[in-house]
Amino acid sequence: MRNIKLILQYDGSKYSGWQKQGNTEKTIQGRLQSVLSKMTDEEIEIIGSGRTDAGVHAKGQVANFKTETKMSNKDIKNYLYKYLPEDIVVYSVRDEEERFHARYNAVSKTYTYKIWNNKYHDVFLRKYTTHIPDKLNIKEMIEASKYLVGEYDFTSFTTLKSKKKSKVREIYSIDIIKNDDLIEISISANGFLYNMVRIIVGTLIEVGLKNMKPGEVRNILNKKDRQQSGPTALPNGLSLDKVNY
Amino acid sequence: MRNIKLILQYDGSKYSGWQKQGNTEKTIQGRLQSVLSKMTDEEIEIIGSGRTDAGVHAKGQVANFKTETKMSNKDIKNYLYKYLPEDIVVYSVRDEEERFHARYNAVSKTYTYKIWNNKYHDVFLRKYTTHIPDKLNIKEMIEASKYLVGEYDFTSFTTLKSKKKSKVREIYSIDIIKNDDLIEISISANGFLYNMVRIIVGTLIEVGLKNMKPGEVRNILNKKDRQQSGPTALPNGLSLDKVNY
Repeated sequence: MRNIKLILQYDGSKYSGWQKQGNTEKTIQGRLQSVLSKMTDEEIEIIGSGRTDAGVHAKGQVANFKTETKMSNKDIKNYLYKYLPEDIVVYSVRDEEERFHARYNAVSKTYTYKIWNNKYHDVFLRKYTTHIPDKLNIKEMIEASKYLVGEYDFTSFTTLKSKKKSKVREIYSIDIIKNDDLIEISISANGFLYNMVRIIVGTLIEVGLKNMKPGEVRNILNKKDRQQSGPTALPNGLSLDKVNY
Repeated sequence: MRNIKLILQYDGSKYSGWQKQGNTEKTIQGRLQSVLSKMTDEEIEIIGSGRTDAGVHAKGQVANFKTETKMSNKDIKNYLYKYLPEDIVVYSVRDEEERFHARYNAVSKTYTYKIWNNKYHDVFLRKYTTHIPDKLNIKEMIEASKYLVGEYDFTSFTTLKSKKKSKVREIYSIDIIKNDDLIEISISANGFLYNMVRIIVGTLIEVGLKNMKPGEVRNILNKKDRQQSGPTALPNGLSLDKVNY
């Protein structure tokens, strides 16, 4: 049995997220499984490094699947390129050890969130940025972000309700870069809770809009209460950039 | 009578070009005229700096129209932002002298053509770049482009058949920049013939693919024959960046 690792990018605008549910055509996982099953004449189950929500994009999602196919990796890549829709591109296909698991073996991930900070949105980036018309104070956003770097219980920054599982994660870095009207927030961590990036960004936006002082973020973290943090930022600005193993 | 100048950007993917023809909703000019006519309760005729073809984008198209409205420019801008579709954004509105004419008064224009030069297309740039999977030789493309800078008869680089009008234009500069897999070709001239940028780019691509030697471009220019030059490059990589007055 082969175990094949894929690296792919997708424009999530038209999908209801990564995870298969009901209508296969509407999820990335469903689309991939359907093309791979046709290709191999097997019932392929594909494992992603993690789910991405409806409307969220990926530049470097990683997935793996088991197969008996004898096709070369190059042929698999070309087949996928030919039969997947143009908003999903698998750009790396290679054999991995039998025990490789895209989700369990991921040691860190990087997400990037893009904000278009101008009174008017940009027509070319409108699907890949979230539009914030009011001027954001980057300096205070950077200051606020520093309170989140480290190992903490991120209960205040997730909509996941389960009390059983640990909410402790380690954020390695948060980089905020402004280039004219485009603000990019890159967050690397050993793992992310459900909606964690979007709630962190939603909170940093509150700071940038001066609705919240940077130091407030430390208190929010300590309170372990979702009610204290900012709103969940829209999905279209978010992209899964990289998964490390 | 006021004479108002607009600067706008649009994603041309879904339009059959700038110029109004039949179905108003399918052209940029038609869309603008329909919103402006509703806004002013006048029959507005809008003049563009030039047509852009179906699928061609703009970052800095310029247009003007006459009106009796007493609305402030700020209110006009907000009205347009509210009622135009999200792929058209007018970001500058100001009064001009009565004799200002967006087409006749343009002294130079800059177009940028974007090529994605990788075996696989990029999902995020797929609507704004033309995908060339085979490796392009940038050095030879730059060498070839130099033969086109200056004042020449560009008959070989237009599909315009009329023999009456002069085909002489002056290209001020052609800049070709490569950034990873993205190649951007910026061309500034005092004016452009029909399809001129796309045929120049189509010819430079032939050079980049080694189907043509750089020096060949000089001969093509001299022959004044459309049959000698390369194919017309696809519209989706093209954008009207700037119009100078």
